Amino acid sequence: MIIDIHGHYTTEPAVMHQFRDKQIAGLADASRRPASSDLGISDEEMIKSVAPQIKFQQERGSDLTIFSPRAAGMGHHVGTEAVGQVWTRLSNDMIHRICTLLPDNFVGVGQLPQVPGISPANCVPELERIVNELGFVGVNLNPDPSGGYWTDPPLTDRYWYPVYEKLVELQVPAMIHVTGSCNPAVHHTGAHYINADTTAFMQLLQGNLFKDFPDLKFVIPHGGGAVPYHWGRYRGLAMMLKKPTLAEHLLKNIFFDTCVYHLPGIKLLTDVVPIDNILFGSELLGAVKDIDPETGHYFDDTKRYVDQIKDFSDANRYKLFEGNARRVYPRLNALLKKRGRTGRSSGS
Amino acid sequence: MIIDIHGHYTTEPAVMHQFRDKQIAGLADASRRPASSDLGISDEEMIKSVAPQIKFQQERGSDLTIFSPRAAGMGHHVGTEAVGQVWTRLSNDMIHRICTLLPDNFVGVGQLPQVPGISPANCVPELERIVNELGFVGVNLNPDPSGGYWTDPPLTDRYWYPVYEKLVELQVPAMIHVTGSCNPAVHHTGAHYINADTTAFMQLLQGNLFKDFPDLKFVIPHGGGAVPYHWGRYRGLAMMLKKPTLAEHLLKNIFFDTCVYHLPGIKLLTDVVPIDNILFGSELLGAVKDIDPETGHYFDDTKRYVDQIKDFSDANRYKLFEGNARRVYPRLNALLKKRGRTGRSSGS
Repeated sequence: MIIDIHGHYTTEPAVMHQFRDKQIAGLADASRRPASSDLGISDEEMIKSVAPQIKFQQERGSDLTIFSPRAAGMGHHVGTEAVGQVWTRLSNDMIHRICTLLPDNFVGVGQLPQVPGISPANCVPELERIVNELGFVGVNLNPDPSGGYWTDPPLTDRYWYPVYEKLVELQVPAMIHVTGSCNPAVHHTGAHYINADTTAFMQLLQGNLFKDFPDLKFVIPHGGGAVPYHWGRYRGLAMMLKKPTLAEHLLKNIFFDTCVYHLPGIKLLTDVVPIDNILFGSELLGAVKDIDPETGHYFDDTKRYVDQIKDFSDANRYKLFEGNARRVYPRLNALLKKRGRTGRSSGS
Repeated sequence: MIIDIHGHYTTEPAVMHQFRDKQIAGLADASRRPASSDLGISDEEMIKSVAPQIKFQQERGSDLTIFSPRAAGMGHHVGTEAVGQVWTRLSNDMIHRICTLLPDNFVGVGQLPQVPGISPANCVPELERIVNELGFVGVNLNPDPSGGYWTDPPLTDRYWYPVYEKLVELQVPAMIHVTGSCNPAVHHTGAHYINADTTAFMQLLQGNLFKDFPDLKFVIPHGGGAVPYHWGRYRGLAMMLKKPTLAEHLLKNIFFDTCVYHLPGIKLLTDVVPIDNILFGSELLGAVKDIDPETGHYFDDTKRYVDQIKDFSDANRYKLFEGNARRVYPRLNALLKKRGRTGRSSGS
């Protein structure tokens, strides 16, 4: 089967935006606060809202999408912690409804009620809820809740440890994913997302986090930001910082997705990064929505690029499309096994 | 000839660091201020200080390095504007001495006395001085003088226009290059440099700066940050933002260097970016100083990677190693011609 580990709910119903508008307006004018967090959406409307994703799954030949709230919508830098808590629960609950209604198409990943400058320990109850109560298999962790100003400590700081302890206990990986940018110098999908991937990798390279958490797993999306393109630089920086090789130091714990929107990029990714560290993803429906005039296919139809890699063995293909996802997301693997989809022994 | 457009004076004499220490200590304790900005360095010491660069030029087969002050040393976020003015003049004067002593090996590029939140117009006098008096052929422009917090407006903002007007008038390009990072979340050579390249490109993609300045030229170093690896993303974002193609919108004005420290990265760069937009650079002596154990050669010996590109025509090789540099740095071309080195007609 083909598992797409990077999908966002970017086709959410308009009432969700209306709720968020009222919530943020309510910060300045309490009379505008939403009366209730019941959006009054029917199951039919929920199913209809993800018709575009399902159509693309079918057309492009993927089976299951690991699905999380719209990344730019998380908005950790917007409003108070209390507002963020409500918004996070509502956003996660919407994902849960989609995954309950369409369990063959979607498996849930959640967002956390992060706030810049406030301890991530406050996110642990929601992390427990989404895994234990909603059955989510992972979570998005924002390394820069300030939205483009990088005011929180690096991911290697003990500041983040309460979340890591819970991630390891629950056996769920975190995708390192920022939200929108409120910095006019930094475009969200064109700079902030990619920069965050690069920055997070370098933070982890500088530190020794995985000595403290050998079972912690991070997925760095968007093909690892700039990292694979500059793999020589990072191998060299590891040497200069007296760290072990990248393979020893980081690659038991860090994984990249394939959200790179042209064939040369996917070729480079699969050329330099070990196959065990690459998971199929397309950011469906994501940052880039058009058809590439050079190929006549959608930019984000990343499966097509992988399919064009020559000399890619069947074993490698299995790892990239399914096996690695089962390994990195053990709760997904358990879920699939329960449904009778066991996978190959190498990947489970 | 082989022109390396990206070299920094990272082997500066210790007295330069001592001067800077006194200068910064002087901010808190006036009694520690340096008594004079005459460092008392002899010509012999100056020449000796760049022996490592000259050795590498000879061993690797490059002829001329476009040489600017240590990037991380610019320190635009450190101290007052007055301190920055003195430091900038001193740093540029040191480059001028090297270039005067060793004109066959080095041609100068300067730094500007930028300060976060203070108009770049204040940099114009130093820009005029380094070009008109010191004979420099370009300048480094820092898109984030805050040192990792991105508090200044994007490069497309009119805030920057006084510098652009002068650059066009003087016919010198700017290399978009940040200095060190004072943000503990953002490593300088491993994240901030690469992020700045990506961020600057995206700022320029979002705007229409080159409509106002059709003759302005920017070199984005480190192989363009993450941009070539995500070329499909940027082509797609240009479509979503209703911009012309990247070629029409940006590539008459933006150029990338080859500071990418492994063969797959250089392959990708030369595969996706038009040859007219790639200039040879090695960041000599730069971010990564070691020998790559996988190849037995220095990571930053980027000429070796270019030499390994198959099906690279002699015309392309000329453009990348010499012709494009002559075109992007017209004052360099004029200087070389005056010395009887005319280049081929295609590149001059």
